[in-house]
Amino acid sequence: MLRRFTRSVIIFIILFHSYVYASSASLNDPLPSWHDHAIKKAIIDFVQTVTDTTNKDYVPPEDRIATIDNDGTLWVEQPIYTQMIFIMDRIKALAHTHPEWQHLEPYQSILHHQAEHLNAANLEHLFAVTSQGLSTKEYISLIKKWLATAENPHFKKHYTELIYQPMLEVIHYLHEHHFMVYIVSGGGQDFIRAFSPTIYHIPLERIIGSSSQTQYLYQHHAAHLIKIPKPLLICNNEGKPEAIHLFIGKKPIIAFGNSDGDRQMLEWTQSGKGKHLMLLVHHDDGKREYAYDIHSKIGTFSKSLFREAKKQHWHIISMKNDWKVIFPFER
Amino acid sequence: MLRRFTRSVIIFIILFHSYVYASSASLNDPLPSWHDHAIKKAIIDFVQTVTDTTNKDYVPPEDRIATIDNDGTLWVEQPIYTQMIFIMDRIKALAHTHPEWQHLEPYQSILHHQAEHLNAANLEHLFAVTSQGLSTKEYISLIKKWLATAENPHFKKHYTELIYQPMLEVIHYLHEHHFMVYIVSGGGQDFIRAFSPTIYHIPLERIIGSSSQTQYLYQHHAAHLIKIPKPLLICNNEGKPEAIHLFIGKKPIIAFGNSDGDRQMLEWTQSGKGKHLMLLVHHDDGKREYAYDIHSKIGTFSKSLFREAKKQHWHIISMKNDWKVIFPFER
Repeated sequence: MLRRFTRSVIIFIILFHSYVYASSASLNDPLPSWHDHAIKKAIIDFVQTVTDTTNKDYVPPEDRIATIDNDGTLWVEQPIYTQMIFIMDRIKALAHTHPEWQHLEPYQSILHHQAEHLNAANLEHLFAVTSQGLSTKEYISLIKKWLATAENPHFKKHYTELIYQPMLEVIHYLHEHHFMVYIVSGGGQDFIRAFSPTIYHIPLERIIGSSSQTQYLYQHHAAHLIKIPKPLLICNNEGKPEAIHLFIGKKPIIAFGNSDGDRQMLEWTQSGKGKHLMLLVHHDDGKREYAYDIHSKIGTFSKSLFREAKKQHWHIISMKNDWKVIFPFER
Repeated sequence: MLRRFTRSVIIFIILFHSYVYASSASLNDPLPSWHDHAIKKAIIDFVQTVTDTTNKDYVPPEDRIATIDNDGTLWVEQPIYTQMIFIMDRIKALAHTHPEWQHLEPYQSILHHQAEHLNAANLEHLFAVTSQGLSTKEYISLIKKWLATAENPHFKKHYTELIYQPMLEVIHYLHEHHFMVYIVSGGGQDFIRAFSPTIYHIPLERIIGSSSQTQYLYQHHAAHLIKIPKPLLICNNEGKPEAIHLFIGKKPIIAFGNSDGDRQMLEWTQSGKGKHLMLLVHHDDGKREYAYDIHSKIGTFSKSLFREAKKQHWHIISMKNDWKVIFPFER
């Protein structure tokens, strides 16, 4: 228990340090973890242009919308989405009350550590099983507890330490320039909300993600929203511009993604009237993180997306060549 | 045309004037259109308490969530919701391309000015007929055009002039104290977005309302969201706390409503941890506006809501006794 506490304190100090570092660094260089290549210059030029009241491309603060994908754009998504690991850990934690799961798919695969057999339909089902009947408050509290202790087996780090330092600097830089920075993720909205305010400094009302329906319950002067296993929003592909309209009602002027699921969000951003900037993180650093694109099941960056990016002049960020460090703990 | 332009300029001057008036007045009295009775005092006490860093009930700005209903709370809803008049006017405008409507319900009733025969199912159908196939941009543009010219037959005013001056002052007062003020309405989100930034000074991303699904369309480098006739959110009754969780993820600390449809939003607000304030506008001024409650089909304020309000110490605002003026143009 004491070790765990010490560990938490150390993580807090590291994160706080990285935040303060980003703050002070920004006086000189707003993006110190980025190499001084074309993309860093493009981001800084863009922000300077749209915030310069004398520039013809000036954008008032109320229209400075930034949308950023989460998995693979703000934190690690390999070998499998963090939320999936949470869900599988929930299945394991609940298994003693469900002896039948030992011989029933997809539970059997999870309990015997053969998660590679899972498919998208399994995931939706598992999400429902592990969340239904819980209140939104209970669910978020479970996620917080899990994030405080679970470790990524490859990096031997907490999942909330596996966030990209260069992207933290981008968020901070955009906030400093009065952008409204939203996360727009195919992942679960409540899942991201469990850590986003402390880790990314992005408040709950700016988290857009996939979500299930809830049912309002009012008993004995207490009000709850109970999660029910019916999808409400699937915030991926076409679902991203649809959710952006629903939550924001304005087009982003800058958008970051990393995979085919972000394509429509970038098109939506590009279709806006004024100046805009579209960027894709390319995972090409097998040494410091992972190298994957067209053949990956998670975070597919298809040939067709490469072609569209090139044609539309979307920037492709090379993690290997554009980022000096990947994670805050490297510094 | 020139008359219409002159009219628009006059309206702009009136609204601008009311905004400036609210701004300057707030130096002394933040709510000049409210009589100095208990409710005005309760609102001011509440805002002063939660924004006082030395008070045990202090609430940091990121948690200062205010939610306000629209129809009947911010503007007139009698004898029928403004959005319904818009929809009926759309049916009339489209009627020449649908000769069959002359003998087909519910169109026939609308075309022959017998709208009192309409029911909720009709309305949903009519909403679908008048919006499907339009892009969100086209739809909002149609609403803006309509609002610029349509007149309320009773008051002989534009609908956007029929907003409650005392509530404008509340919005302004809350904004001045760094509250995030959201509209949470059973009415259509896109409909409210068409006028809310200019009339209420509430930005698009803070408008929560009922909405239909959209379909993303990308052709020839242009991106559109096309309205499809499937409801996505019905933001009334239980739908209000559900939507508040979806859009904000935090409980409001102050909430205003006026009818049974706002009950769950007020309960949700009340169930929060810290200090909170719940208020209901009671339409009891048949002379200056309308007098209605338990028997009204629009904006029902049932006996049961009166009982709950009393039991839970929710404030009931008397339009007759608490408000010096109702509309900006009265001053």
